[in-house]
Amino acid sequence: MYSKRIENLLKKSGIEVGDRIEVIRNGKKYEGTLMPRISGNEDIIIIKLDNGYNVGIKPDKIKLVSKRVLKKRKKVKRVKKDPNKPTIVILGMGGTIASKIDYVTGAVTPLFSPEDIVENVPELKEISNIEGREIDRKLSENVDFDDYEKLVKEIKKEMKRKVKGIIITHGTDTLHYTASALSFAIENPPLPIILVGSQRSSDRASSDGPMNLICAAQFITKTDFKGVAISMHASESDDYCHILPPCKTRKMHSSKRDAFKTVNSKPIAKVYPDGRVEFIDKPKESNIPTTTIKGKFERKVALLKVYPNMDPKIVDFFTKNKYKGIVLEGTGMGHAPIKILEPLKKFLKNGIVVMTTQCLNGRVNMNVYSTGRLLQDIGVVSGEDMLPEVAYIKLSWLLANYKSRKKVEELLKKNLRGEINERSEI
Amino acid sequence: MYSKRIENLLKKSGIEVGDRIEVIRNGKKYEGTLMPRISGNEDIIIIKLDNGYNVGIKPDKIKLVSKRVLKKRKKVKRVKKDPNKPTIVILGMGGTIASKIDYVTGAVTPLFSPEDIVENVPELKEISNIEGREIDRKLSENVDFDDYEKLVKEIKKEMKRKVKGIIITHGTDTLHYTASALSFAIENPPLPIILVGSQRSSDRASSDGPMNLICAAQFITKTDFKGVAISMHASESDDYCHILPPCKTRKMHSSKRDAFKTVNSKPIAKVYPDGRVEFIDKPKESNIPTTTIKGKFERKVALLKVYPNMDPKIVDFFTKNKYKGIVLEGTGMGHAPIKILEPLKKFLKNGIVVMTTQCLNGRVNMNVYSTGRLLQDIGVVSGEDMLPEVAYIKLSWLLANYKSRKKVEELLKKNLRGEINERSEI
Repeated sequence: MYSKRIENLLKKSGIEVGDRIEVIRNGKKYEGTLMPRISGNEDIIIIKLDNGYNVGIKPDKIKLVSKRVLKKRKKVKRVKKDPNKPTIVILGMGGTIASKIDYVTGAVTPLFSPEDIVENVPELKEISNIEGREIDRKLSENVDFDDYEKLVKEIKKEMKRKVKGIIITHGTDTLHYTASALSFAIENPPLPIILVGSQRSSDRASSDGPMNLICAAQFITKTDFKGVAISMHASESDDYCHILPPCKTRKMHSSKRDAFKTVNSKPIAKVYPDGRVEFIDKPKESNIPTTTIKGKFERKVALLKVYPNMDPKIVDFFTKNKYKGIVLEGTGMGHAPIKILEPLKKFLKNGIVVMTTQCLNGRVNMNVYSTGRLLQDIGVVSGEDMLPEVAYIKLSWLLANYKSRKKVEELLKKNLRGEINERSEI
Repeated sequence: MYSKRIENLLKKSGIEVGDRIEVIRNGKKYEGTLMPRISGNEDIIIIKLDNGYNVGIKPDKIKLVSKRVLKKRKKVKRVKKDPNKPTIVILGMGGTIASKIDYVTGAVTPLFSPEDIVENVPELKEISNIEGREIDRKLSENVDFDDYEKLVKEIKKEMKRKVKGIIITHGTDTLHYTASALSFAIENPPLPIILVGSQRSSDRASSDGPMNLICAAQFITKTDFKGVAISMHASESDDYCHILPPCKTRKMHSSKRDAFKTVNSKPIAKVYPDGRVEFIDKPKESNIPTTTIKGKFERKVALLKVYPNMDPKIVDFFTKNKYKGIVLEGTGMGHAPIKILEPLKKFLKNGIVVMTTQCLNGRVNMNVYSTGRLLQDIGVVSGEDMLPEVAYIKLSWLLANYKSRKKVEELLKKNLRGEINERSEI
């Protein structure tokens, strides 16, 4: 609720939440949609501008521009299946791609079901038969290891049905974490599993979700690719998408539509919405034709960023709480302040520590400097050129699925899913 | 010590550590400098290849190529001061720029004094009179808040002597953290303070240290720039350096010479080793001519990266240990798993929390999604487009130098040293 003063101003003009209004402040006019107040100063009115952003204004005057138009919800027609077209299953996890403005909280929240997505992106039905079901309705910052395990089970179900491919709609914040989790859990999948997100919600003209979905569907139906990948805008314009490797990709911008970039690697392919596909770096097909699913994740694993003056007691926290693994996001080639060496030694008695680099680009090399050598000496494993986020997911997955410490340490250093590039040196 | 077998092989050929040798393994030959063993399998011999990398080989045969040539250490001549040239003071903090191979540990460790640097880079004496002294001899992962406070005091001393500028030689791993610390501590410095590092040590032909130093000296003597900045290679070749802003720069590659890149900002200038300077984004001169030094840093501050399935108890650790501030490296526009909200609430009773983004590029906007709104509601402060590392240093500096919580929170959101760009939206 807004303050009495604001509520009175609104009442006087017959304005309700969702109406288009003009707010005047110090002679300046601002036009937009009235949002409900959920926090902050109750004398400040929140409107959503046409550029999609919300602003708070302490109003001198408020005028009604137009009443909210309630769009009638069309009844979703179940389209008859075309026997000549392949079938794609969309599994919905939530996120912006499945969201619109929520007038209850005044913010963007997940709302759409997979049926709604198809209704919004009719082009999908031209490319293939679309089936969809909602697995979850989560903002991606809340997706956790329970969700990974659940999602793997749902994918397993779809794999038995022999569909052409699976699209997973997912929030973008942690989409790359989920992509690498699925990639480790499902070895040699017999079909493409493409994660798709949207940086802008569907109520904005600049929404990238539809094109990301179309490119994913085109890539699934037009190629023989099998495996986990990501489909997102390759540039700020609507020309084409990149199909990105699940273990070498990171969200590198908070808001741009081409936020997802490869690190230490190249995109798999360029896909145009009209169906043209240009491979850039197609992964080699495995010579083992069998699919192996190991869908568990160890919870007692942490990702710890290293920084100047950090408290060595943070490492003791993980030792005391019986953690089984820590991925360090070290500096440079894989370094950490010398004062965390002793706490790390204690942790290493029962746990595994992997070193990655906060530079993100380049690889860990703990042979060059004395700190790296000392860290290796106490048992810290080099994460090579793995992204910190990927090393975290990989360590959790290895600890849950392999019992021997030796085996876990051996597999950590080995490239399993394209997460490690071979060294160019000997 | 190597194993008996290896030691015997070496003895037989009269080989000592530092000698050039040929190692044969499965018919393949490897040539390089013999390094001492400090860790790992004692049957594996370590040699430094000509590309600067160390490799471990289990040798079938070892041959001596040439004995180690001990270079005679030239006596450093104190060059007479040229009264027509300005004076630059080099303050040495350690790092690769002041390092060479250490045959005791077999790794690269800091060894050079500033006098050695001048001896190695005679061009510096052509540009200006050079004075130098060593403040510390640290690998940059060990530089901490004590060092920042010490360095500020040493800079203060030099400022009184009215030299043309100061160069600080520093390890690259945390050079950007130190640059932002100096930038906050010294407001409106009356002279240029340029941090210089080296990605490759001086024993390698590809060492970038000399050119980075020369460009720093050229920039100091050829321009009227005043303030803190970084001088490092702009590309992989030796064409020019970038002078980089202290609060918008990050080490973005573990090993490349052009590892330092601006984020959400542009370099200040291009500098060629011959002295040509092209400004790209010259900071506005302050209209307050007085220099203010506030050289303290609060130790009870943490930088905490957010990730899927993170343990909410990590936040409680900081509450229990009476931390005064946490900088969160959130996902996307500034989000964190909903389950850390309650622990954060408790921390916020006595502490300050700032939100930044692990995307690095782009800015935090906690008005768009419901999680952002909830975080703001409990008192989390938006770090706008500040780098997580810079927000961490800034929070520590503010907490040490300003008593009122209100003031600290107000200054956090305000651009003080170029660390925040104005919003393009209202």
